[in-house]
Amino acid sequence: MLRHLVSVTVVLLVVPAFLTGQELQMADLGECQLESGEVIQTCRIGYRSVGTMDAEGANVVLFPTWFGGTSEEILGLLGPDGMIDTSQFFVVIVDAFGNGVSSSASNTAGQSGPAFPRITIRDMVRHQHRLLRERLGVSRLKAVVGISMGGMQAFEWAVSYPDFADKIVPIVGSPRLAVYDVVLWETDMRLLQWFLDCRCQPPAAVRRGLYFLMGGPNFHARVSPRDTLPQARASLETATLTVERAYDLSSQLRAMIAHNVAAPFDGSLERAASRVRAKLFVVVGLADHVVTPGPALEFARLLEAPTLALDNDCGHQAPWCEADVFNPAVRAFLRE
Amino acid sequence: MLRHLVSVTVVLLVVPAFLTGQELQMADLGECQLESGEVIQTCRIGYRSVGTMDAEGANVVLFPTWFGGTSEEILGLLGPDGMIDTSQFFVVIVDAFGNGVSSSASNTAGQSGPAFPRITIRDMVRHQHRLLRERLGVSRLKAVVGISMGGMQAFEWAVSYPDFADKIVPIVGSPRLAVYDVVLWETDMRLLQWFLDCRCQPPAAVRRGLYFLMGGPNFHARVSPRDTLPQARASLETATLTVERAYDLSSQLRAMIAHNVAAPFDGSLERAASRVRAKLFVVVGLADHVVTPGPALEFARLLEAPTLALDNDCGHQAPWCEADVFNPAVRAFLRE
Repeated sequence: MLRHLVSVTVVLLVVPAFLTGQELQMADLGECQLESGEVIQTCRIGYRSVGTMDAEGANVVLFPTWFGGTSEEILGLLGPDGMIDTSQFFVVIVDAFGNGVSSSASNTAGQSGPAFPRITIRDMVRHQHRLLRERLGVSRLKAVVGISMGGMQAFEWAVSYPDFADKIVPIVGSPRLAVYDVVLWETDMRLLQWFLDCRCQPPAAVRRGLYFLMGGPNFHARVSPRDTLPQARASLETATLTVERAYDLSSQLRAMIAHNVAAPFDGSLERAASRVRAKLFVVVGLADHVVTPGPALEFARLLEAPTLALDNDCGHQAPWCEADVFNPAVRAFLRE
Repeated sequence: MLRHLVSVTVVLLVVPAFLTGQELQMADLGECQLESGEVIQTCRIGYRSVGTMDAEGANVVLFPTWFGGTSEEILGLLGPDGMIDTSQFFVVIVDAFGNGVSSSASNTAGQSGPAFPRITIRDMVRHQHRLLRERLGVSRLKAVVGISMGGMQAFEWAVSYPDFADKIVPIVGSPRLAVYDVVLWETDMRLLQWFLDCRCQPPAAVRRGLYFLMGGPNFHARVSPRDTLPQARASLETATLTVERAYDLSSQLRAMIAHNVAAPFDGSLERAASRVRAKLFVVVGLADHVVTPGPALEFARLLEAPTLALDNDCGHQAPWCEADVFNPAVRAFLRE
């Protein structure tokens, strides 16, 4: 026990001070130039780290956040029996723009609310690259692993910085959105706009209803028997939103709606795929009702990349319904 | 050809005048007492008929309308190659309360809009029974066939009037709603209320988005490739609602949300099923995202009734994606 404590202390002394723990770190990047031509003036990116960087800095894994999520929420997924074995890898979890931690409509003085510039998935990735190179001294990644909107960022990493990461693991993510997905996010955008226009809570209940339905009918046939109706109703009726949250979510929704790794290649997914040098491992849920699996599987096919296509009824949560298959598969891919 | 015309003329002379054709007929029922204790004061039910009643009046099929639908829209489903062979059966298509043709919020003087009484699926069925007995002189049905909310009415017919119809064919309908279905309809209710409160069109676009999504991800992966995005967006953006329509839809939504054939039996689906004397043939779509198939299949199991469980990706439209299987199956069940 004493030896364990001592070795931890030694490690802490070796790792640079800004990479020493799971507590939230904030990097000031100055100005962040955006694809739209706009600029975030006082640009900040939040991150946390788990594990220990090896002597060569060759075991760094980047893990960007999902839609509306924060780096804190990802901590629980890591560990020897989790998605990434942090005894082997040094994981940098990075807060995506617009999540309320990194620069967002809710926290950017002088550019708050509707004045916050339009961001894209490519903007998120570009400034994560800056964070790694300019602030953390990381010039190469072992892998980028991301879930949902994090998976969209992972695909974008593969195309935008083909020589930066050895491996890319997009999980229930997408290289560009299917029409179904766009309709979902644009519908959510309208609900947020309703809330912002009226400052009333009904759209929060509608949003919660919408995402309940996106669980999929087979999932709810199994987990929501008729006697759970009072709980389902209570869940909808108690949903709330804040103005700050609505602007942040809108900002990330716009980024997802515009997301398309093929955009710089005249819309050709083939040409985008031909840029990729990393090894991909693509995880999808075949009954995913939020990020539908088609585009991710198409990209994997173009690269002849291995896939894990989970055939369960859990929709977008597919990996967590088969954690005993999913977690070891990701760990094995990162290890090999 | 001449003989054909003559025989048609003869038939027209034999059939009572109020049952002579596909044109809309309106029956005035005076007062309609409702489950809630309220009364529709000037109660009217619309209907159309197709085919010829036989001498014994033993070939009458009742066909109630789906959510928001009218008897006119059902005409196209009938015919020798359609769902019901109208050379053999005399089909009475009946407009459900709240559809804008029969008594509805939009057309009831003195009880319009929010003053229109709350109706139930059981109310629809009870006064269809009155229409048949009191106005059309029909004392027995060969069958009740209904789709979606019409299928809900068909289940209710089986339980409320067990000796009135020989056969019941609920198609993508339900004896009571799954939690998933209730969340869908209550979400739609909130959208209609938003429209009524604000008299603005955004909720119409959200409703169209919602029902687009209810097509299901696999269906859209097949029929909505990425280059159809402009059409999908245009469809959402051009959606419109009227106040009259919103009240009518709300009225039928409330009826569906409260629908439960087991309600008079302390919520016991077993006891409700034990009342049934008719032969049932239950058609469901296994990937239905609007009226999920579980409750209908459960009711069929309790009765050991034959089912047609369509395993395609067409969601609530499942029967029309396999019309070559579905139509002959319904015709065969009615014929046997």
